[in-house]
Amino acid sequence: MEQRLSLITLGVADVHLAHSFYQRLGWQGQEVQETVFFQAGGLAFSLWSREKLAADLGVTDHAADGFGGVALAHNVRSPTEVDQILAAAEEAGARITRAAAETFYGGYAGAFSDPDGHLWEIAHNPGFALADDGTITVPDFSTD
Amino acid sequence: MEQRLSLITLGVADVHLAHSFYQRLGWQGQEVQETVFFQAGGLAFSLWSREKLAADLGVTDHAADGFGGVALAHNVRSPTEVDQILAAAEEAGARITRAAAETFYGGYAGAFSDPDGHLWEIAHNPGFALADDGTITVPDFSTD
Repeated sequence: MEQRLSLITLGVADVHLAHSFYQRLGWQGQEVQETVFFQAGGLAFSLWSREKLAADLGVTDHAADGFGGVALAHNVRSPTEVDQILAAAEEAGARITRAAAETFYGGYAGAFSDPDGHLWEIAHNPGFALADDGTITVPDFSTD
Repeated sequence: MEQRLSLITLGVADVHLAHSFYQRLGWQGQEVQETVFFQAGGLAFSLWSREKLAADLGVTDHAADGFGGVALAHNVRSPTEVDQILAAAEEAGARITRAAAETFYGGYAGAFSDPDGHLWEIAHNPGFALADDGTITVPDFSTD
C-alpha cells in the first residue's frame, strides 16, 4: 500500500448546506449526484450523505453525537492567517472549539467544528515546511 | 482559506499498536513524543492518542463506538491491487467491512476498518486520474 491518501469524504446531514459552508470559506466544488467534490491539492475532498457513506462502507451509523476521532488540519503561513480563517469559519457557521493560542510545539493554532461536527485545526506551525502549492513536509525528527 | 488540507490525524487507543498496523501495510513513519507522523504525498498523516486529540481540539470524547462520519480513500491502478491491499490489511489486523466488488461508478472497491475503527476505502476508479506520484485529479463533471 503506497504511503498516500486519495480522497477524504465527510459524511454530512445535508449535502447542500455542507457545500454552502465550504463555499463561504472560499472553496469551489462540483456537485454531482448529491455528492460534492473539491480538488484539494493532490487530494480530492468530498461531501456525501452520512447515511449513504455508512451504508457504502458496510458499517452501522450509531449517529454518534460527538467526536469521531479524526482531525483535519489546515496549516497557514502566519498567526494572523489563523485568526482570519477562524473568524471566517465562525462567520460561515462553524463553532470555535478552541480559541487560537500559542501551542506547545511553538506554533499558533485554533480549532473549529463544521456544521456536521467535523473538526478542523487551523495552524501556523513553523516546524512543518509549507510549499507555495500548499504541500506540507514532515520534518526529519531524527536530527533534533 | 485555500482549498487544501495539510494534515490528517487519527485518534487512536494505543499509538504503538496503531503504528504497527500501518507499518505492516508498508508505511514508514516517525514516532516522536507519542505521535507518529507519516509523509503521505503532499500531506502529513499522523496517529495520536484519541484522548489527547479530543482535549487538544476542545471537544468532549463520548468514546462513541462506531462510525465517525469520515472515510479515507486510497485509490489504486487496478482491481487486482484492490484485492491485494484488502488482503494485506486483513492480515495486518483490519476488519473488512465491505468485500471488494464492482461499484456503481464503474470502478472496483472494498473497505476496511483499522484497529481503531477508522475506515478506509480501497478503490480502483478509472474516472479519477491517478498520477505516478499518487496525486489524484477530480474530473470535470460539467463535460459529462
